[in-house]
Amino acid sequence: MDIIYLLDLIGTLVFAISGTLTATSKKFDIFGAAVIAFVTAVGGGTLRDLLIGSTPVGWMLDLNYLLMIGLAILLSLFFRQFIQKLRRTLFIFDTIGIGLFTILGLQKTLVLGISPIVAVMMGTVSAVFGGVIRDILCNEVPLIFRKEIYATACISGACLFLLLQKLSLAYSWTVLITVSFIIILRIFSVKKKWSLPVLS
Amino acid sequence: MDIIYLLDLIGTLVFAISGTLTATSKKFDIFGAAVIAFVTAVGGGTLRDLLIGSTPVGWMLDLNYLLMIGLAILLSLFFRQFIQKLRRTLFIFDTIGIGLFTILGLQKTLVLGISPIVAVMMGTVSAVFGGVIRDILCNEVPLIFRKEIYATACISGACLFLLLQKLSLAYSWTVLITVSFIIILRIFSVKKKWSLPVLS
Amino acid sequence: MDIIYLLDLIGTLVFAISGTLTATSKKFDIFGAAVIAFVTAVGGGTLRDLLIGSTPVGWMLDLNYLLMIGLAILLSLFFRQFIQKLRRTLFIFDTIGIGLFTILGLQKTLVLGISPIVAVMMGTVSAVFGGVIRDILCNEVPLIFRKEIYATACISGACLFLLLQKLSLAYSWTVLITVSFIIILRIFSVKKKWSLPVLS
Repeated sequence: MDIIYLLDLIGTLVFAISGTLTATSKKFDIFGAAVIAFVTAVGGGTLRDLLIGSTPVGWMLDLNYLLMIGLAILLSLFFRQFIQKLRRTLFIFDTIGIGLFTILGLQKTLVLGISPIVAVMMGTVSAVFGGVIRDILCNEVPLIFRKEIYATACISGACLFLLLQKLSLAYSWTVLITVSFIIILRIFSVKKKWSLPVLS
Repeated sequence: MDIIYLLDLIGTLVFAISGTLTATSKKFDIFGAAVIAFVTAVGGGTLRDLLIGSTPVGWMLDLNYLLMIGLAILLSLFFRQFIQKLRRTLFIFDTIGIGLFTILGLQKTLVLGISPIVAVMMGTVSAVFGGVIRDILCNEVPLIFRKEIYATACISGACLFLLLQKLSLAYSWTVLITVSFIIILRIFSVKKKWSLPVLS
Repeated sequence: MDIIYLLDLIGTLVFAISGTLTATSKKFDIFGAAVIAFVTAVGGGTLRDLLIGSTPVGWMLDLNYLLMIGLAILLSLFFRQFIQKLRRTLFIFDTIGIGLFTILGLQKTLVLGISPIVAVMMGTVSAVFGGVIRDILCNEVPLIFRKEIYATACISGACLFLLLQKLSLAYSWTVLITVSFIIILRIFSVKKKWSLPVLS
Protein backbone atom coordinates (compact mmCIF):
# COMPACT_ATOMS: atom_id res chain seq x y z
CA MET A 1 0.00 0.00 0.00
CA ASP A 2 1.35 3.36 -1.06
CA ILE A 3 0.22 5.27 2.00
CA ILE A 4 2.02 2.81 4.30
CA TYR A 5 5.21 3.10 2.28
CA LEU A 6 5.00 6.88 2.39
CA LEU A 7 4.47 6.93 6.17
CA ASP A 8 7.35 4.48 6.56
CA LEU A 9 9.63 6.91 4.70
CA ILE A 10 8.39 9.86 6.75
CA GLY A 11 8.96 7.85 9.94
CA THR A 12 12.53 7.17 8.80
CA LEU A 13 13.05 10.87 8.10
CA VAL A 14 11.77 11.89 11.53
CA PHE A 15 13.81 9.25 13.36
CA ALA A 16 16.91 10.44 11.50
CA ILE A 17 16.20 14.07 12.40
CA SER A 18 15.89 13.09 16.05
CA GLY A 19 19.19 11.18 15.77
CA THR A 20 20.98 14.15 14.28
CA LEU A 21 19.72 16.43 17.04
CA THR A 22 20.99 13.94 19.65
CA ALA A 23 24.42 13.82 17.99
CA THR A 24 24.56 17.60 17.94
CA SER A 25 23.96 17.77 21.66
CA LYS A 26 26.89 15.34 22.07
CA LYS A 27 29.26 17.58 20.06
CA PHE A 28 29.86 14.91 17.43
CA ASP A 29 31.24 15.97 14.06
CA ILE A 30 29.27 15.60 10.82
CA PHE A 31 30.40 12.01 10.29
CA GLY A 32 29.38 11.05 13.82
CA ALA A 33 26.03 12.80 13.38
CA ALA A 34 25.43 10.92 10.12
CA VAL A 35 26.15 7.60 11.83
CA ILE A 36 23.81 8.40 14.72
CA ALA A 37 21.05 9.62 12.37
CA PHE A 38 21.42 6.45 10.35
CA VAL A 39 21.42 4.11 13.34
CA THR A 40 18.45 5.80 14.99
CA ALA A 41 16.44 5.54 11.78
CA VAL A 42 17.24 2.03 10.56
CA GLY A 43 19.10 0.35 13.44
CA GLY A 44 16.05 -1.45 14.82
CA GLY A 45 15.00 -2.84 11.45
CA THR A 46 18.58 -3.83 10.72
CA LEU A 47 18.89 -5.79 13.96
CA ARG A 48 15.55 -7.50 13.18
CA ASP A 49 16.71 -8.41 9.67
CA LEU A 50 19.96 -9.87 11.01
CA LEU A 51 18.16 -11.96 13.65
CA ILE A 52 15.55 -13.38 11.28
CA GLY A 53 18.16 -13.93 8.58
CA SER A 54 16.80 -11.51 6.00
CA THR A 55 20.01 -10.25 4.37
CA PRO A 56 21.14 -8.04 2.73
CA VAL A 57 19.31 -5.97 5.32
CA GLY A 58 16.25 -3.97 4.20
CA TRP A 59 17.66 -0.47 3.65
CA MET A 60 20.26 -1.86 1.23
CA LEU A 61 17.51 -2.88 -1.16
CA ASP A 62 15.60 0.40 -1.40
CA LEU A 63 17.70 3.55 -1.58
CA ASN A 64 14.78 5.79 -0.65
CA TYR A 65 15.56 5.08 3.00
CA LEU A 66 19.12 6.38 2.60
CA LEU A 67 17.71 9.36 0.73
CA MET A 68 15.41 10.15 3.67
CA ILE A 69 18.32 9.92 6.10
CA GLY A 70 20.50 12.17 3.95
CA LEU A 71 17.65 14.66 3.70
CA ALA A 72 17.13 14.51 7.47
CA ILE A 73 20.79 15.32 8.12
CA LEU A 74 20.71 18.30 5.77
CA LEU A 75 17.46 19.61 7.24
CA SER A 76 18.73 19.21 10.80
CA LEU A 77 21.95 21.04 10.06
CA PHE A 78 20.56 23.92 8.05
CA PHE A 79 17.19 24.50 9.68
CA ARG A 80 17.85 23.52 13.27
CA GLN A 81 16.13 26.51 14.83
CA PHE A 82 13.07 25.94 12.69
CA ILE A 83 12.99 22.20 13.34
CA GLN A 84 13.18 22.67 17.08
CA LYS A 85 10.01 24.74 16.85
CA LEU A 86 8.31 21.81 15.14
CA ARG A 87 8.73 19.54 18.16
CA ARG A 88 5.03 18.78 18.38
CA THR A 89 4.75 17.84 14.70
CA LEU A 90 7.90 15.75 14.91
CA PHE A 91 6.53 13.93 17.95
CA ILE A 92 3.39 12.98 15.99
CA PHE A 93 5.39 11.58 13.07
CA ASP A 94 7.81 9.87 15.43
CA THR A 95 4.85 8.16 17.07
CA ILE A 96 3.35 7.20 13.70
CA GLY A 97 6.79 5.84 12.77
CA ILE A 98 6.92 3.67 15.89
CA GLY A 99 3.45 2.29 15.23
CA LEU A 100 4.23 1.49 11.61
CA PHE A 101 7.69 0.07 12.25
CA THR A 102 6.19 -2.30 14.81
CA ILE A 103 3.55 -3.65 12.44
CA LEU A 104 5.88 -3.83 9.42
CA GLY A 105 8.52 -5.66 11.50
CA LEU A 106 5.89 -8.04 12.84
CA GLN A 107 4.68 -8.89 9.34
CA LYS A 108 8.18 -9.32 7.89
CA THR A 109 8.87 -11.89 10.61
CA LEU A 110 5.53 -13.73 10.20
CA VAL A 111 6.08 -14.05 6.45
CA LEU A 112 9.19 -16.13 7.15
CA GLY A 113 7.05 -18.62 9.07
CA ILE A 114 8.51 -17.67 12.43
CA SER A 115 6.33 -17.99 15.56
CA PRO A 116 3.89 -15.12 16.36
CA ILE A 117 5.47 -14.57 19.80
CA VAL A 118 8.84 -14.01 18.19
CA ALA A 119 7.15 -11.78 15.58
CA VAL A 120 5.76 -9.55 18.35
CA MET A 121 9.30 -9.26 19.76
CA MET A 122 10.75 -8.46 16.34
CA GLY A 123 8.08 -5.81 15.72
CA THR A 124 9.08 -4.17 18.99
CA VAL A 125 12.79 -4.49 18.18
CA SER A 126 12.15 -2.77 14.82
CA ALA A 127 10.52 0.16 16.55
CA VAL A 128 12.68 0.70 19.63
CA PHE A 129 16.16 -0.77 19.12
CA GLY A 130 17.34 2.00 16.81
CA GLY A 131 17.18 4.17 19.92
CA VAL A 132 18.96 1.53 22.02
CA ILE A 133 21.87 1.29 19.55
CA ARG A 134 22.00 5.10 19.37
CA ASP A 135 22.30 5.30 23.17
CA ILE A 136 25.04 2.66 23.23
CA LEU A 137 27.03 4.49 20.55
CA CYS A 138 26.63 7.67 22.62
CA ASN A 139 27.90 5.76 25.68
CA GLU A 140 24.70 6.09 27.67
CA VAL A 141 22.43 3.61 29.40
CA PRO A 142 19.57 3.05 26.94
CA LEU A 143 16.77 5.42 27.87
CA ILE A 144 13.94 2.92 27.41
CA PHE A 145 15.41 0.53 30.01
CA ARG A 146 14.77 3.10 32.71
CA LYS A 147 11.86 5.13 31.48
CA GLU A 148 9.34 3.13 29.56
CA ILE A 149 7.79 5.23 26.84
CA TYR A 150 7.57 2.99 23.84
CA ALA A 151 7.92 -0.68 24.20
CA THR A 152 4.69 -1.56 26.02
CA ALA A 153 2.67 0.29 23.38
CA CYS A 154 4.48 -1.59 20.60
CA ILE A 155 4.00 -4.98 22.26
CA SER A 156 0.30 -4.32 22.92
CA GLY A 157 -0.28 -3.12 19.37
CA ALA A 158 1.50 -6.11 17.90
CA CYS A 159 -0.64 -8.48 19.97
CA LEU A 160 -3.78 -6.64 18.83
CA PHE A 161 -2.64 -7.09 15.22
CA LEU A 162 -2.35 -10.85 15.71
CA LEU A 163 -5.81 -10.94 17.27
CA LEU A 164 -7.48 -8.96 14.47
CA GLN A 165 -5.71 -11.08 11.87
CA LYS A 166 -7.07 -14.17 13.61
CA LEU A 167 -10.54 -12.66 13.35
CA SER A 168 -9.96 -12.32 9.57
CA LEU A 169 -10.40 -8.57 9.57
CA ALA A 170 -9.41 -6.94 6.24
CA TYR A 171 -5.68 -6.21 6.07
CA SER A 172 -5.95 -2.45 5.62
CA TRP A 173 -8.32 -2.14 8.60
CA THR A 174 -6.06 -4.31 10.72
CA VAL A 175 -3.09 -2.08 9.99
CA LEU A 176 -5.06 1.11 10.48
CA ILE A 177 -6.52 0.02 13.81
CA THR A 178 -3.32 -1.38 15.32
CA VAL A 179 -1.11 1.52 14.24
CA SER A 180 -3.70 3.97 15.61
CA PHE A 181 -3.86 1.96 18.81
CA ILE A 182 -0.07 2.18 19.30
CA ILE A 183 -0.11 5.90 18.54
CA ILE A 184 -2.94 6.64 20.96
CA LEU A 185 -1.47 4.46 23.69
CA ARG A 186 1.84 6.21 23.41
CA ILE A 187 0.41 9.71 23.35
CA PHE A 188 -1.68 8.87 26.40
CA SER A 189 1.25 7.39 28.27
CA VAL A 190 3.34 10.48 27.56
CA LYS A 191 0.51 12.84 28.60
CA LYS A 192 -0.29 10.91 31.74
CA LYS A 193 3.38 10.19 32.48
CA TRP A 194 2.59 6.51 32.74
CA SER A 195 5.56 4.31 33.27
CA LEU A 196 6.39 0.78 34.25
CA PRO A 197 7.36 0.12 37.86
CA VAL A 198 11.07 0.55 38.47
CA LEU A 199 12.72 -2.40 40.17
CA SER A 200 14.89 -1.92 43.20
CA MET B 1 19.99 -36.40 24.35
CA ASP B 2 17.18 -35.42 26.72
CA ILE B 3 19.37 -34.75 29.71
CA ILE B 4 21.50 -32.30 27.72
CA TYR B 5 18.42 -30.47 26.47
CA LEU B 6 17.06 -30.26 30.01
CA LEU B 7 20.31 -28.89 31.40
CA ASP B 8 20.46 -26.42 28.51
CA LEU B 9 17.02 -25.11 29.49
CA ILE B 10 17.98 -24.91 33.16
CA GLY B 11 21.17 -23.06 32.20
CA THR B 12 19.05 -20.58 30.23
CA LEU B 13 16.75 -20.11 33.24
CA VAL B 14 19.64 -19.48 35.60
CA PHE B 15 21.39 -17.06 33.21
CA ALA B 16 18.10 -15.16 32.85
CA ILE B 17 17.65 -15.00 36.64
CA SER B 18 21.14 -13.59 37.02
CA GLY B 19 20.36 -11.05 34.28
CA THR B 20 17.16 -9.93 36.01
CA LEU B 21 19.00 -9.47 39.31
CA THR B 22 21.63 -7.33 37.54
CA ALA B 23 18.91 -5.16 35.97
CA THR B 24 17.26 -4.73 39.35
CA SER B 25 20.47 -3.43 40.86
CA LYS B 26 20.61 -0.89 38.00
CA LYS B 27 17.08 0.38 38.72
CA PHE B 28 15.79 -0.61 35.30
CA ASP B 29 12.05 -0.94 34.79
CA ILE B 30 10.37 -4.26 33.95
CA PHE B 31 10.94 -3.86 30.22
CA GLY B 32 14.63 -3.12 30.76
CA ALA B 33 14.91 -6.08 33.12
CA ALA B 34 13.29 -8.36 30.54
CA VAL B 35 15.74 -7.21 27.86
CA ILE B 36 18.73 -7.76 30.15
CA ALA B 37 17.46 -11.18 31.26
CA PHE B 38 16.95 -12.14 27.64
CA VAL B 39 20.34 -10.91 26.46
CA THR B 40 22.22 -12.54 29.34
CA ALA B 41 20.53 -15.87 28.63
CA VAL B 42 20.66 -16.10 24.84
CA GLY B 43 22.92 -13.22 23.72
CA GLY B 44 26.02 -15.39 23.38
CA GLY B 45 24.28 -18.06 21.33
CA THR B 46 22.61 -15.39 19.21
CA LEU B 47 25.93 -13.74 18.37
CA ARG B 48 27.37 -17.16 17.48
CA ASP B 49 24.40 -17.94 15.23
CA LEU B 50 24.77 -14.60 13.44
CA LEU B 51 28.50 -15.09 12.87
CA ILE B 52 28.23 -18.63 11.54
CA GLY B 53 25.17 -17.72 9.47
CA SER B 54 22.64 -19.93 11.23
CA THR B 55 19.46 -17.82 10.99
CA PRO B 56 16.75 -17.42 12.16
CA VAL B 57 18.79 -17.58 15.35
CA GLY B 58 18.33 -20.56 17.65
CA TRP B 59 15.86 -19.29 20.26
CA MET B 60 13.39 -18.36 17.52
CA LEU B 61 12.99 -21.99 16.57
CA ASP B 62 12.25 -23.46 20.01
CA LEU B 63 9.94 -21.43 22.22
CA ASN B 64 10.99 -23.31 25.35
CA TYR B 65 13.94 -20.94 25.65
CA LEU B 66 11.60 -17.92 25.73
CA LEU B 67 9.45 -19.78 28.25
CA MET B 68 12.47 -20.29 30.52
CA ILE B 69 13.34 -16.58 30.28
CA GLY B 70 9.76 -15.53 31.06
CA LEU B 71 9.72 -17.90 34.03
CA ALA B 72 13.06 -16.54 35.24
CA ILE B 73 11.77 -12.97 35.16
CA LEU B 74 8.66 -13.90 37.14
CA LEU B 75 10.65 -15.90 39.69
CA SER B 76 13.18 -13.09 40.12
CA LEU B 77 10.50 -10.49 40.65
CA PHE B 78 8.25 -12.42 43.02
CA PHE B 79 10.74 -14.52 44.98
CA ARG B 80 13.79 -12.31 45.03
CA GLN B 81 14.52 -12.76 48.72
CA PHE B 82 14.28 -16.51 48.36
CA ILE B 83 16.37 -16.60 45.20
CA GLN B 84 19.13 -14.60 46.75
CA LYS B 85 19.41 -17.27 49.44
CA LEU B 86 19.91 -19.82 46.70
CA ARG B 87 23.12 -18.20 45.47
CA ARG B 88 25.15 -21.37 45.85
CA THR B 89 22.65 -23.50 43.93
CA LEU B 90 22.39 -20.85 41.24
CA PHE B 91 26.16 -20.72 40.94
CA ILE B 92 26.26 -24.48 40.32
CA PHE B 93 23.65 -24.30 37.55
CA ASP B 94 25.26 -21.20 36.09
CA THR B 95 28.51 -23.13 35.88
CA ILE B 96 26.79 -26.16 34.35
CA GLY B 97 25.19 -23.75 31.88
CA ILE B 98 28.54 -22.33 30.85
CA GLY B 99 30.00 -25.78 30.35
CA LEU B 100 27.06 -26.94 28.27
CA PHE B 101 26.74 -23.75 26.21
CA THR B 102 30.41 -24.05 25.29
CA ILE B 103 30.12 -27.61 24.04
CA LEU B 104 26.78 -27.07 22.27
CA GLY B 105 28.14 -23.94 20.56
CA LEU B 106 31.28 -25.80 19.54
CA GLN B 107 29.28 -28.62 17.98
CA LYS B 108 26.85 -26.34 16.18
CA THR B 109 29.82 -24.67 14.50
CA LEU B 110 31.61 -27.91 13.64
CA VAL B 111 28.46 -29.30 12.00
CA LEU B 112 28.61 -26.44 9.47
CA GLY B 113 32.07 -27.60 8.42
CA ILE B 114 33.82 -24.59 9.95
CA SER B 115 37.39 -24.99 11.25
CA PRO B 116 37.86 -26.46 14.77
CA ILE B 117 39.81 -23.41 15.94
CA VAL B 118 36.87 -21.19 15.01
CA ALA B 119 34.53 -23.70 16.67
CA VAL B 120 36.45 -23.37 19.96
CA MET B 121 36.03 -19.59 19.71
CA MET B 122 32.32 -19.91 18.92
CA GLY B 123 31.82 -22.27 21.88
CA THR B 124 33.39 -19.67 24.13
CA VAL B 125 31.34 -16.87 22.56
CA SER B 126 28.17 -18.89 23.23
CA ALA B 127 29.04 -19.20 26.90
CA VAL B 128 30.46 -15.78 27.77
CA PHE B 129 29.22 -13.13 25.31
CA GLY B 130 25.73 -12.98 26.77
CA GLY B 131 27.45 -11.42 29.78
CA VAL B 132 29.49 -9.09 27.57
CA ILE B 133 26.39 -7.78 25.76
CA ARG B 134 24.63 -7.39 29.13
CA ASP B 135 27.52 -5.28 30.44
CA ILE B 136 27.53 -3.11 27.30
CA LEU B 137 23.77 -2.51 27.59
CA CYS B 138 24.32 -1.56 31.24
CA ASN B 139 27.07 0.85 30.10
CA GLU B 140 29.87 -0.96 31.94
CA VAL B 141 33.23 -2.32 30.86
CA PRO B 142 32.63 -6.05 30.33
CA LEU B 143 33.57 -7.81 33.55
CA ILE B 144 35.37 -10.72 31.91
CA PHE B 145 37.86 -8.41 30.16
CA ARG B 146 39.26 -7.39 33.51
CA LYS B 147 38.61 -10.33 35.76
CA GLU B 148 38.91 -13.62 34.03
CA ILE B 149 36.44 -16.07 35.47
CA TYR B 150 35.02 -17.94 32.56
CA ALA B 151 36.68 -17.82 29.24
CA THR B 152 39.84 -19.82 29.91
CA ALA B 153 37.79 -22.69 31.32
CA CYS B 154 35.56 -22.65 28.23
CA ILE B 155 38.48 -22.57 25.81
CA SER B 156 40.28 -25.40 27.63
CA GLY B 157 37.12 -27.52 27.77
CA ALA B 158 36.43 -26.95 24.09
CA CYS B 159 39.96 -28.04 23.19
CA LEU B 160 39.57 -31.15 25.36
CA PHE B 161 36.35 -31.95 23.48
CA LEU B 162 38.17 -31.82 20.15
CA LEU B 163 40.91 -34.08 21.52
CA LEU B 164 38.49 -36.68 22.89
CA GLN B 165 36.53 -36.62 19.64
CA LYS B 166 39.78 -37.23 17.75
CA LEU B 167 40.36 -40.24 20.01
CA SER B 168 36.90 -41.52 18.95
CA LEU B 169 35.54 -41.57 22.48
CA ALA B 170 31.77 -42.19 22.61
CA TYR B 171 29.79 -38.95 22.20
CA SER B 172 28.00 -39.07 25.54
CA TRP B 173 31.27 -39.66 27.42
CA THR B 174 32.96 -36.87 25.53
CA VAL B 175 30.22 -34.42 26.48
CA LEU B 176 30.13 -35.60 30.09
CA ILE B 177 33.89 -35.35 30.56
CA THR B 178 34.34 -31.98 28.89
CA VAL B 179 31.38 -30.30 30.55
CA SER B 180 32.57 -31.63 33.94
CA PHE B 181 36.07 -30.42 33.17
CA ILE B 182 34.81 -26.89 32.49
CA ILE B 183 32.69 -26.93 35.65
CA ILE B 184 35.52 -28.14 37.87
CA LEU B 185 38.03 -25.75 36.34
CA ARG B 186 35.71 -22.83 36.92
CA ILE B 187 34.82 -23.78 40.48
CA PHE B 188 38.51 -24.19 41.27
CA SER B 189 39.43 -20.87 39.70
CA VAL B 190 36.72 -19.12 41.72
CA LYS B 191 37.74 -20.86 44.97
CA LYS B 192 41.45 -20.23 44.44
CA LYS B 193 40.83 -16.74 43.02
CA TRP B 194 42.86 -17.66 39.96
CA SER B 195 42.99 -14.99 37.31
CA LEU B 196 44.91 -14.15 34.18
CA PRO B 197 47.73 -11.63 34.47
CA VAL B 198 46.52 -8.05 34.02
CA LEU B 199 48.44 -6.08 31.43
CA SER B 200 49.84 -2.67 32.21
CA MET C 1 46.46 -10.62 -6.39
CA ASP C 2 49.15 -11.78 -4.02
CA ILE C 3 50.43 -8.37 -3.04
CA ILE C 4 46.93 -7.26 -2.03
CA TYR C 5 46.43 -10.37 0.09
CA LEU C 6 49.79 -9.82 1.77
CA LEU C 7 49.01 -6.19 2.55
CA ASP C 8 45.59 -7.23 3.84
CA LEU C 9 47.27 -9.63 6.29
CA ILE C 10 49.80 -7.00 7.36
CA GLY C 11 46.95 -4.52 7.86
CA THR C 12 45.19 -7.07 10.07
CA LEU C 13 48.39 -7.58 12.08
CA VAL C 14 48.88 -3.86 12.62
CA PHE C 15 45.22 -3.26 13.58
CA ALA C 16 45.50 -6.12 16.08
CA ILE C 17 48.71 -4.68 17.55
CA SER C 18 47.00 -1.32 17.99
CA GLY C 19 44.05 -3.09 19.64
CA THR C 20 46.31 -4.92 22.08
CA LEU C 21 48.07 -1.71 23.04
CA THR C 22 44.67 -0.07 23.70
CA ALA C 23 43.61 -2.97 25.92
CA THR C 24 46.86 -2.74 27.83
CA SER C 25 46.25 0.90 28.62
CA LYS C 26 42.83 -0.14 29.98
CA LYS C 27 44.33 -2.73 32.35
CA PHE C 28 42.48 -5.60 30.71
CA ASP C 29 43.75 -9.13 31.26
CA ILE C 30 45.11 -11.31 28.44
CA PHE C 31 41.68 -12.59 27.47
CA GLY C 32 40.29 -9.06 27.30
CA ALA C 33 43.31 -7.94 25.28
CA ALA C 34 42.80 -10.80 22.83
CA VAL C 35 39.15 -9.87 22.35
CA ILE C 36 40.01 -6.20 21.76
CA ALA C 37 42.85 -7.10 19.36
CA PHE C 38 40.49 -9.38 17.48
CA VAL C 39 37.63 -6.89 17.30
CA THR C 40 39.88 -4.01 16.21
CA ALA C 41 41.35 -6.13 13.44
CA VAL C 42 38.29 -7.88 12.00
CA GLY C 43 35.29 -6.19 13.63
CA GLY C 44 34.61 -3.85 10.72
CA GLY C 45 34.75 -6.60 8.10
CA THR C 46 32.62 -8.83 10.31
CA LEU C 47 29.89 -6.20 10.65
CA ARG C 48 29.99 -5.69 6.85
CA ASP C 49 29.68 -9.44 6.25
CA LEU C 50 26.71 -9.68 8.61
CA LEU C 51 24.91 -6.74 6.98
CA ILE C 52 25.39 -7.95 3.41
CA GLY C 53 24.58 -11.54 4.40
CA SER C 54 27.96 -13.10 3.64
CA THR C 55 28.19 -15.77 6.35
CA PRO C 56 30.09 -17.54 7.83
CA VAL C 57 31.93 -14.23 8.14
CA GLY C 58 35.22 -13.81 6.27
CA TRP C 59 37.84 -14.56 8.95
CA MET C 60 36.24 -17.96 9.61
CA LEU C 61 37.12 -19.09 6.11
CA ASP C 62 40.83 -18.22 6.06
CA LEU C 63 42.74 -18.97 9.25
CA ASN C 64 45.63 -16.71 8.24
CA TYR C 65 43.71 -13.77 9.69
CA LEU C 66 43.49 -15.48 13.10
CA LEU C 67 47.17 -16.32 12.79
CA MET C 68 48.00 -12.66 12.23
CA ILE C 69 45.95 -11.65 15.26
CA GLY C 70 47.62 -14.28 17.45
CA LEU C 71 51.01 -13.11 16.24
CA ALA C 72 50.06 -9.50 16.95
CA ILE C 73 49.09 -10.33 20.53
CA LEU C 74 52.35 -12.16 21.17
CA LEU C 75 54.43 -9.38 19.60
CA SER C 76 52.58 -6.71 21.59
CA LEU C 77 53.07 -8.55 24.87
CA PHE C 78 56.71 -9.53 24.48
CA PHE C 79 58.13 -6.61 22.50
CA ARG C 80 56.04 -3.73 23.70
CA GLN C 81 58.93 -1.37 24.25
CA PHE C 82 60.27 -2.10 20.81
CA ILE C 83 56.87 -1.80 19.14
CA GLN C 84 56.19 1.55 20.71
CA LYS C 85 59.37 2.83 19.06
CA LEU C 86 57.96 1.71 15.72
CA ARG C 87 54.98 4.08 15.94
CA ARG C 88 55.77 5.73 12.62
CA THR C 89 56.08 2.42 10.76
CA LEU C 90 52.90 1.14 12.39
CA PHE C 91 51.06 4.29 11.37
CA ILE C 92 52.05 3.73 7.74
CA PHE C 93 50.79 0.13 7.75
CA ASP C 94 47.67 1.12 9.66
CA THR C 95 46.94 3.66 6.94
CA ILE C 96 47.63 1.14 4.18
CA GLY C 97 45.29 -1.22 6.02
CA ILE C 98 42.50 1.34 6.08
CA GLY C 99 42.90 2.04 2.38
CA LEU C 100 42.88 -1.64 1.47
CA PHE C 101 40.03 -2.61 3.82
CA THR C 102 37.90 0.12 2.24
CA ILE C 103 38.46 -1.06 -1.32
CA LEU C 104 38.16 -4.78 -0.46
CA GLY C 105 34.94 -4.15 1.48
CA LEU C 106 33.58 -2.08 -1.40
CA GLN C 107 34.28 -4.83 -3.91
CA LYS C 108 32.87 -7.61 -1.73
CA THR C 109 29.59 -5.68 -1.56
CA LEU C 110 29.48 -4.85 -5.27
CA VAL C 111 30.02 -8.50 -6.20
CA LEU C 112 26.72 -9.34 -4.43
CA GLY C 113 24.90 -6.96 -6.78
CA ILE C 114 24.21 -4.40 -4.04
CA SER C 115 23.95 -0.71 -4.97
CA PRO C 116 27.25 1.28 -5.33
CA ILE C 117 26.15 3.81 -2.69
CA VAL C 118 25.71 1.02 -0.16
CA ALA C 119 29.04 -0.44 -1.29
CA VAL C 120 30.79 2.84 -0.46
CA MET C 121 29.22 2.68 3.00
CA MET C 122 30.25 -0.94 3.48
CA GLY C 123 33.81 -0.16 2.39
CA THR C 124 33.94 2.54 5.04
CA VAL C 125 32.36 0.25 7.66
CA SER C 126 35.03 -2.37 6.90
CA ALA C 127 37.79 0.15 7.54
CA VAL C 128 36.52 2.10 10.54
CA PHE C 129 33.95 0.08 12.49
CA GLY C 130 36.51 -2.24 14.05
CA GLY C 131 37.62 0.86 15.96
CA VAL C 132 34.03 1.78 16.82
CA ILE C 133 33.31 -1.67 18.28
CA ARG C 134 36.60 -1.55 20.17
CA ASP C 135 35.63 1.81 21.72
CA ILE C 136 32.19 0.50 22.70
CA LEU C 137 33.71 -2.58 24.36
CA CYS C 138 36.07 -0.26 26.23
CA ASN C 139 33.04 1.81 27.31
CA GLU C 140 34.12 4.97 25.49
CA VAL C 141 32.41 7.24 23.00
CA PRO C 142 33.75 6.13 19.61
CA LEU C 143 36.72 8.34 18.75
CA ILE C 144 35.83 8.85 15.11
CA PHE C 145 32.44 10.37 15.95
CA ARG C 146 34.17 13.31 17.56
CA LYS C 147 37.48 13.56 15.78
CA GLU C 148 37.28 12.69 12.17
CA ILE C 149 40.50 11.07 11.03
CA TYR C 150 39.45 8.23 8.83
CA ALA C 151 36.02 8.07 7.43
CA THR C 152 36.08 10.96 4.98
CA ALA C 153 39.24 9.58 3.37
CA CYS C 154 37.62 6.14 3.04
CA ILE C 155 34.41 7.53 1.55
CA SER C 156 36.32 9.70 -0.94
CA GLY C 157 38.58 6.82 -1.96
CA ALA C 158 35.64 4.48 -2.41
CA CYS C 159 33.90 7.02 -4.66
CA LEU C 160 37.09 7.45 -6.69
CA PHE C 161 37.21 3.67 -7.13
CA LEU C 162 33.70 3.65 -8.57
CA LEU C 163 34.61 6.48 -10.94
CA LEU C 164 37.78 4.81 -12.22
CA GLN C 165 35.91 1.55 -12.65
CA LYS C 166 33.29 3.37 -14.70
CA LEU C 167 36.12 4.69 -16.88
CA SER C 168 37.21 1.05 -17.42
CA LEU C 169 40.66 1.57 -15.95
CA ALA C 170 42.57 -1.70 -15.44
CA TYR C 171 41.72 -3.33 -12.09
CA SER C 172 45.23 -3.28 -10.66
CA TRP C 173 45.66 0.42 -11.49
CA THR C 174 42.28 1.23 -10.02
CA VAL C 175 43.19 -0.45 -6.75
CA LEU C 176 46.65 1.10 -6.67
CA ILE C 177 45.39 4.61 -7.33
CA THR C 178 42.46 4.53 -4.91
CA VAL C 179 44.35 2.92 -2.05
CA SER C 180 47.18 5.44 -2.52
CA PHE C 181 44.61 8.24 -2.61
CA ILE C 182 43.13 7.14 0.74
CA ILE C 183 46.59 6.82 2.27
CA ILE C 184 47.74 10.24 1.08
CA LEU C 185 44.50 11.92 2.10
CA ARG C 186 44.72 10.46 5.58
CA ILE C 187 48.40 11.32 6.07
CA PHE C 188 47.68 14.86 4.92
CA SER C 189 44.69 15.21 7.21
CA VAL C 190 46.72 13.99 10.18
CA LYS C 191 49.66 16.29 9.35
CA LYS C 192 47.45 19.30 8.76
CA LYS C 193 45.13 18.41 11.65
CA TRP C 194 42.17 18.63 9.32
CA SER C 195 38.89 17.69 10.83
CA LEU C 196 35.20 17.93 10.11
CA PRO C 197 33.24 20.74 11.74
CA VAL C 198 31.92 19.82 15.17
CA LEU C 199 28.22 20.40 15.63
CA SER C 200 26.87 22.28 18.60
